[in-house]
Amino acid sequence: MKPIDEQFKIIQRGTDEIINPDALKAKLKENRPLIIKAGFDPSAPDIHLGHTVLLRKLKHFQDLGHQVFFLIGDFTGRIGDPSGKSKVRKQLTAEEVAENAKTYKKQIFKILDEKKTKVVFNSHWCVKLGEEGLFDLASRYTVARMLERDDFLNRYKNNVPISILEFLYPLLQGYDSVVMEADVELGGTDQKFNLLVGRALQKNFGSDPKTIPAYLGKSIDTFRKDTAAPARKTYNFDSQIIITMPILEGVDGVEKMSKSLNNYIGINESPDNMFGKIMSISDNLMWRYYELLTDADHLMLKENVAKGKIHPKTVKTDLAKLIVSEYHGKDKAEEACSKFDAVFAKKENPEDMPGFFIDKEKIGIVDLVKEVGFAPSSSEARRLVEQMAVSVNEEKITDVKMEISLDKKGKILKVGKRKFGRIFRA
Amino acid sequence: MKPIDEQFKIIQRGTDEIINPDALKAKLKENRPLIIKAGFDPSAPDIHLGHTVLLRKLKHFQDLGHQVFFLIGDFTGRIGDPSGKSKVRKQLTAEEVAENAKTYKKQIFKILDEKKTKVVFNSHWCVKLGEEGLFDLASRYTVARMLERDDFLNRYKNNVPISILEFLYPLLQGYDSVVMEADVELGGTDQKFNLLVGRALQKNFGSDPKTIPAYLGKSIDTFRKDTAAPARKTYNFDSQIIITMPILEGVDGVEKMSKSLNNYIGINESPDNMFGKIMSISDNLMWRYYELLTDADHLMLKENVAKGKIHPKTVKTDLAKLIVSEYHGKDKAEEACSKFDAVFAKKENPEDMPGFFIDKEKIGIVDLVKEVGFAPSSSEARRLVEQMAVSVNEEKITDVKMEISLDKKGKILKVGKRKFGRIFRA
Repeated sequence: MKPIDEQFKIIQRGTDEIINPDALKAKLKENRPLIIKAGFDPSAPDIHLGHTVLLRKLKHFQDLGHQVFFLIGDFTGRIGDPSGKSKVRKQLTAEEVAENAKTYKKQIFKILDEKKTKVVFNSHWCVKLGEEGLFDLASRYTVARMLERDDFLNRYKNNVPISILEFLYPLLQGYDSVVMEADVELGGTDQKFNLLVGRALQKNFGSDPKTIPAYLGKSIDTFRKDTAAPARKTYNFDSQIIITMPILEGVDGVEKMSKSLNNYIGINESPDNMFGKIMSISDNLMWRYYELLTDADHLMLKENVAKGKIHPKTVKTDLAKLIVSEYHGKDKAEEACSKFDAVFAKKENPEDMPGFFIDKEKIGIVDLVKEVGFAPSSSEARRLVEQMAVSVNEEKITDVKMEISLDKKGKILKVGKRKFGRIFRA
Repeated sequence: MKPIDEQFKIIQRGTDEIINPDALKAKLKENRPLIIKAGFDPSAPDIHLGHTVLLRKLKHFQDLGHQVFFLIGDFTGRIGDPSGKSKVRKQLTAEEVAENAKTYKKQIFKILDEKKTKVVFNSHWCVKLGEEGLFDLASRYTVARMLERDDFLNRYKNNVPISILEFLYPLLQGYDSVVMEADVELGGTDQKFNLLVGRALQKNFGSDPKTIPAYLGKSIDTFRKDTAAPARKTYNFDSQIIITMPILEGVDGVEKMSKSLNNYIGINESPDNMFGKIMSISDNLMWRYYELLTDADHLMLKENVAKGKIHPKTVKTDLAKLIVSEYHGKDKAEEACSKFDAVFAKKENPEDMPGFFIDKEKIGIVDLVKEVGFAPSSSEARRLVEQMAVSVNEEKITDVKMEISLDKKGKILKVGKRKFGRIFRA
């Protein structure tokens, strides 16, 4: 394993907070593969670059020789994580959760090393809880500590309902840390409270085998069996280190990247779309993407741009190539780059206009607006056309049934005042 | 069935609150046996007169032709009711709960008509909840409404821990009302919040068969099977009427009657002890006992005492006879009365001194003080002797090992300045 300071530097990059750094160093000094936990909500299985911030940090740990557990919260998912939510959430059915979990697994190994990743499902051990376990767990945490969480407190103070169920989520999520004997747990900054509950619960249970309740013993056995870990009689509930990662902004540079806000870059998107979207981001956002989505020395690059040694456009092109390479390979990235250059080199239209490649001869205007992400839904796209907010090659489209024929030259789609895109036949 | 106004008058006697009286009258007008629910915590199975306030009200309903369900909360008892408690409670084991429930059943039929009472255990249906049901239930009530409860709010404000588990108790207890389709629920004033949760949950579930979740359907089936009720496809979740009964003061007239405060009259106590203890209460308390522990016309009696038509001592003697008769029969009550008179008629010592009959030749002073309830524990009794607060026949006792020989004539035991008793060999 690498020297501790070197490991620490890699781990620290891009993090929002480490609680606490000294304890992490002490754990690293033990010179053993640490148990790294990251939990994923199975209700949002479409992975975009925003999710990869965390996945890439897991990859760092993995590359450093630590044991990464990709935890699919299929049990907790039945409740739904209330973090940052302002209302009571709809519960998923067991079937929905199972389906989502499958989709998740398909995507993560584009970033993580499949051979070095253990994928676990918390339903495996949480079903051992029973009422007895749920009651015991609920007795180990107080209402006051739960209400210390910012969003809970705000909702309570503003009379926005918090269901009792939402108090159970952090407990179950923390219980996973106890069962997994996690050394480190990673999450987004919005997960900090949940991660701290895990830390507190580990302390609460203690590690004296005599005080381990039966349901916990059974849960640990299940987890060890799932991961083919040897059965032991000792437990390691040393409080886990917490690492929070920033929430990545979407291509608009304002809101967090999210599918519902249509400002995302999906990891399954075509090289051309991915490339075009990255080229469309602001220079400021470019540095953030560099730090959180690549391992390149962004500080040195930034210095060189500041000194005028490199043009920011070159740096952005390199970023787009780096990211596209990660998901599609170097060749596809170079190809996307050439295509992008060919299209944009000679055009006078809004700079950084993204290009969209559509594999059809013709497409209805409503479908087109939705397809490129300029409207979140068909009904919204229809509304925009009806309001005369949509034009193709500077001609207003008013007929929602209008078909647009696509070609290799490209047509300029404009929606509202700020959304531009060049549409090509793929 | 009796006319509604007559029924209502009987029901109303001694109640603290009815929520609400008009709805109760409307239910009575339906002219069917109402489903009357009262839940009992299996952790406190030693029944004293304090408990009988509620049991006697159940008896009234029973006598009026309504169906009383004596609900033993053996499932909720595993959690422990937080009502009025200032700390997190220890959880009972399933075995302890079962043992306590048995003891309970042995006692209640001294008051209730066994043939007309259906004893039910909520574990029967609550085990059908599973995690799914618990989560669903927890999603139906908010943290804010839970914190509206006085004692929760006080504890929250004063930083006294409330465990999340304590939020689950009222929900489960309210769930029983849904399952039982209760028309009326009775409880002590300290139970008001819990009873209201049941009322709210019934409303929340609605009675549309389509919205009844599977676990609730199963729970209702279990309940109906337990009570040999016919299966039906309709549900009656009309909000239950809530009736709270006052908490009875102990013989000291100050604190609530409770075993741990040693100011109680157990329903299993000997006629002589019961009689003596009742004769020791204040005149004020006597009226309260009349109202809550008998069906006598206490208002008329009070008027007659006020007018000087009857001596209060006579009224108190009648009260003692009434209560002792209820648990031991008329003959035993008369016998206890004669004994009491024989002992006290000629004595000059503090009036209303209780008599204690002990079936031993000799007894150690510490045991004696504890036995008659003048000290809550042996160590406290020992401390009192050491502090020279104990005398027998006006002689101070200072030796904690002193043995007192008992006789039929009686000896006067005095502890501190206010506790007197006459001790006889039984």
